[in-house]
Amino acid sequence: MPTAPTRVPQQERSRATQARLLEATVDCLVEHGWSGTTTTVVAARAGVSRGAQLHHYPTKAALVTAAVAHLAERRAMELRTEADALPAGPRRLDRVVDLLAAAFTGPLFVAALELWVAARTDAELRDALVPLEATVGREMHRLTVELLGVDESRPGVREAVQATLDLLRGLGVANLLNDDSTRRTALLHTWKRQLATLLTPAADTDARGPH
Amino acid sequence: MPTAPTRVPQQERSRATQARLLEATVDCLVEHGWSGTTTTVVAARAGVSRGAQLHHYPTKAALVTAAVAHLAERRAMELRTEADALPAGPRRLDRVVDLLAAAFTGPLFVAALELWVAARTDAELRDALVPLEATVGREMHRLTVELLGVDESRPGVREAVQATLDLLRGLGVANLLNDDSTRRTALLHTWKRQLATLLTPAADTDARGPH
Repeated sequence: MPTAPTRVPQQERSRATQARLLEATVDCLVEHGWSGTTTTVVAARAGVSRGAQLHHYPTKAALVTAAVAHLAERRAMELRTEADALPAGPRRLDRVVDLLAAAFTGPLFVAALELWVAARTDAELRDALVPLEATVGREMHRLTVELLGVDESRPGVREAVQATLDLLRGLGVANLLNDDSTRRTALLHTWKRQLATLLTPAADTDARGPH
Repeated sequence: MPTAPTRVPQQERSRATQARLLEATVDCLVEHGWSGTTTTVVAARAGVSRGAQLHHYPTKAALVTAAVAHLAERRAMELRTEADALPAGPRRLDRVVDLLAAAFTGPLFVAALELWVAARTDAELRDALVPLEATVGREMHRLTVELLGVDESRPGVREAVQATLDLLRGLGVANLLNDDSTRRTALLHTWKRQLATLLTPAADTDARGPH
């Protein structure tokens, strides 16, 4: 069976080509924005032929949504790995919020924001992006619950996690044109204490006093 | 002195022309996004000659930043007027948050977001926008403090107002591609109660019980 040994490397080559294209796409979005991200520029940056690129991703919309999905998965894995290294205990919440804040001010957030804004006025991109946005949003919520180690069936926990992610999204946008890290750090310092109160079961809160 | 009667109408005409151009610019940004907003399209939409447009706003960057500044001022005035009509008392905070949430999901927010994202990769726009963004941000903070009728010198008030605006910015982005109003309403319902606690002087809070 002489085909078996070559088929596996072919699949691996395809995956490697795809990964190079997707990473190059995100780099392009970060560096040049939506309008500066052309399929030609991405292929050149990835060192992939136009033919191979069109084989894997026939349109710009297909390429950019695949890129954001791929990077969101990779970033989620990285966040899990980073969170695994965190100590348990009361400081854990602070560090998890810091990890999430870094994600919301990092290149993947910037690339995703380029797509969200472009999709508002680009029907093809919008159709490709809306289902992905819902999935990524749900995954981010689930990941946050997991990293915080909280029980979402308890009243208020779901809302507190949502508010944290919406706040971080807002802080991500505030960081677009300026380094907003000083203000963000101070604001998150306060938010972490509020979040700890919101996430702590009422019995524990009572044991510590009303505030 | 025959020039005096004509000079005033000329100034009025100029102001009216400017206002038409600025409103058309925001409409264009909302409808077509940054890349679809060309000075030619704006002039046509405003019913203003290219010559007159170039006289008032010689570049696209000058036009779009003036448009966002103008609309931010107008929106602030509208918010003040709407807030003046609100009753005092505990429900006021809820209604002020609703007014702000409407602003952060309205056309001016969308137009401003188009500019912020475009400015990230457009040096000319960025230079024009960064000082404006700082001013608009400060004004929005001051307006929120004023509408809520709170005393910013009290500990925690400044941070609570900041967090509210950052949260609303995040909710504005979450609303870009989908009607997120159901989730937003539920989340803000919880946030309003938190904010009331954060903004209420400790003595009043104690009078009402620990929560």
